[in-house]
Amino acid sequence: MKTIKVLLVGLGSVGKGVAGVMADRKGNFIDRGIQFKFIGVCDSKGAVVDENGLDLAATLRQKSEGKLNHNGQSTLEAIKKLDYDILVEVTPTDAKTGEPGLTYIREALQRGKNVVTSNKGPLAIAYKELNELAHKNQAIFQYEATVGGAMPMFNLVRGSLAGNKINNIKGIFNGTCNYILTRMANEEMPYDMVLSEAKELGIAETDPTYDVEGIDTALKIVILANAIFGMDVKLSDVDICGISSVSLESLKLASDAGMVIKLIGEVNPNGGERILKVAPRLVPKEHPLAVQGTLNAALIQTELAGDIVIIGKGAGSIETASAILSDMLYIASVMK
Amino acid sequence: MKTIKVLLVGLGSVGKGVAGVMADRKGNFIDRGIQFKFIGVCDSKGAVVDENGLDLAATLRQKSEGKLNHNGQSTLEAIKKLDYDILVEVTPTDAKTGEPGLTYIREALQRGKNVVTSNKGPLAIAYKELNELAHKNQAIFQYEATVGGAMPMFNLVRGSLAGNKINNIKGIFNGTCNYILTRMANEEMPYDMVLSEAKELGIAETDPTYDVEGIDTALKIVILANAIFGMDVKLSDVDICGISSVSLESLKLASDAGMVIKLIGEVNPNGGERILKVAPRLVPKEHPLAVQGTLNAALIQTELAGDIVIIGKGAGSIETASAILSDMLYIASVMK
Repeated sequence: MKTIKVLLVGLGSVGKGVAGVMADRKGNFIDRGIQFKFIGVCDSKGAVVDENGLDLAATLRQKSEGKLNHNGQSTLEAIKKLDYDILVEVTPTDAKTGEPGLTYIREALQRGKNVVTSNKGPLAIAYKELNELAHKNQAIFQYEATVGGAMPMFNLVRGSLAGNKINNIKGIFNGTCNYILTRMANEEMPYDMVLSEAKELGIAETDPTYDVEGIDTALKIVILANAIFGMDVKLSDVDICGISSVSLESLKLASDAGMVIKLIGEVNPNGGERILKVAPRLVPKEHPLAVQGTLNAALIQTELAGDIVIIGKGAGSIETASAILSDMLYIASVMK
Repeated sequence: MKTIKVLLVGLGSVGKGVAGVMADRKGNFIDRGIQFKFIGVCDSKGAVVDENGLDLAATLRQKSEGKLNHNGQSTLEAIKKLDYDILVEVTPTDAKTGEPGLTYIREALQRGKNVVTSNKGPLAIAYKELNELAHKNQAIFQYEATVGGAMPMFNLVRGSLAGNKINNIKGIFNGTCNYILTRMANEEMPYDMVLSEAKELGIAETDPTYDVEGIDTALKIVILANAIFGMDVKLSDVDICGISSVSLESLKLASDAGMVIKLIGEVNPNGGERILKVAPRLVPKEHPLAVQGTLNAALIQTELAGDIVIIGKGAGSIETASAILSDMLYIASVMK
């Protein structure tokens, strides 16, 4: 049995999902000979530490009761000083600065610590730097959860599609937009009404700008461009058009022609004339990308395997935890 | 650069695909630090050997001209005696005996040699024995190409979905049946007419029994049951109904109700009351499994990641070679 020491930074929706999944299993993956021991958990108030391993169920209970037992150490101090094998960094995304995740990840990689993150900000802003830092310090840097939540992407391309040249990737990478467009098309309800409904259901944020204007999708396109296609691009390199101007009439016209309208993100190196684009686009109803509701879907065009489509839940606390867990198990399996 | 010695057994459609892909790259995967050296290739007449590495482009040319330079060694002798790291076994599937692939794989595993196969017979008949043999001899046994061709399945479940309990898997695992049902539904053509067309196009075999009666799909269900769910079942444990009795009328009725009919294979441990089933079933037109043409699709219901759907080309020489290549690269990456 390998014991892997973990420091979890972030106790929002995703962090609680990770802690909950691990608490249910007591960190045990016996069939793989792996035991995760959480030696610290940090929220915005600082670190809760137990070098013998925290009882995560108790930690989650204390968090919900506002009684977390902080030891006075800040999150940054914990990242710099504690003895751990993997930093699981799941703080909220800041698309402009990447902070605080960017600093956290940088500090851990500089110490040669492996990092798993679900945070799009640091990857969209500093992928190249972080990737080089990981190589230089012989650390493993994994970020499956940043694109498509539970929908496999990076591990799929690097594992199942290993040896394939990837020609381009396009897909639906934002569940909120897909929900809105699906409801508009199926129920013939106007944009504003569906958006209100989505807010009530918790599918859209109170301020939905980030999703409906295509920024979230564009961040994922930047991450795919840099991590899979080896580009070095940033958010401002993406042509972005969101869904707020999609009218009910255009959806009806599309439907009459056997089509639906979806917010499609695309990255295509296209022999140097690269395409980095987020826009509402027509998709035939019977096309595999024409998925409904909050689903995400990606079409990966490859050299040998042809077109591969993967569909899954793009968000959700437990679903995102699943992607993080697959990264943690990967690191555990290759760690000496 | 790691040099990995490969013995390729089988030079039919899949074997030519593997040799062709490797010839194009001269066996080189520089970004992964891996070089494959093919020290032998076998067809039904025996082995062609060059311990310094065959020129695969020349070998393929000689094969097409009927001028392969056999050295008098049988395939079995080559498997027993040559010095190789990976046996790539791609002989045709025999659903009743598993031969000759079963003997070939067994011999290689007994020698502690790693094996990659696309051959459904040996897996459907003797998965448990072969898996135990691999463990005992510390060999790696990979078979991504046996289910769904280029559509990732085993590597997806074990890598991207690592840590997830898989609740059940159902899907379309036979491109010939899917082509026939799609054409019948879209063109309102009767079964016999579409089947003739499929034979002309090379999508159906001259004797299509194996595909249209659901045997091929059932073999894949057996492999999934044994390899992913740890069952120990065989072909006769599967309830099988093929597509030859699907009428144009039933497809029209389905269509009027917003549905299509697909040949669905399902494996579900279902708390001990296991389901192993192949049958034509109704699928809503907008469901992700309602894919058209020769595509394959699988719905994987998981504990944490929710439902994941993967869609890809289920057959084809190069597509199958892609799955084999991913297995070869996996073995190469973990070999000492």
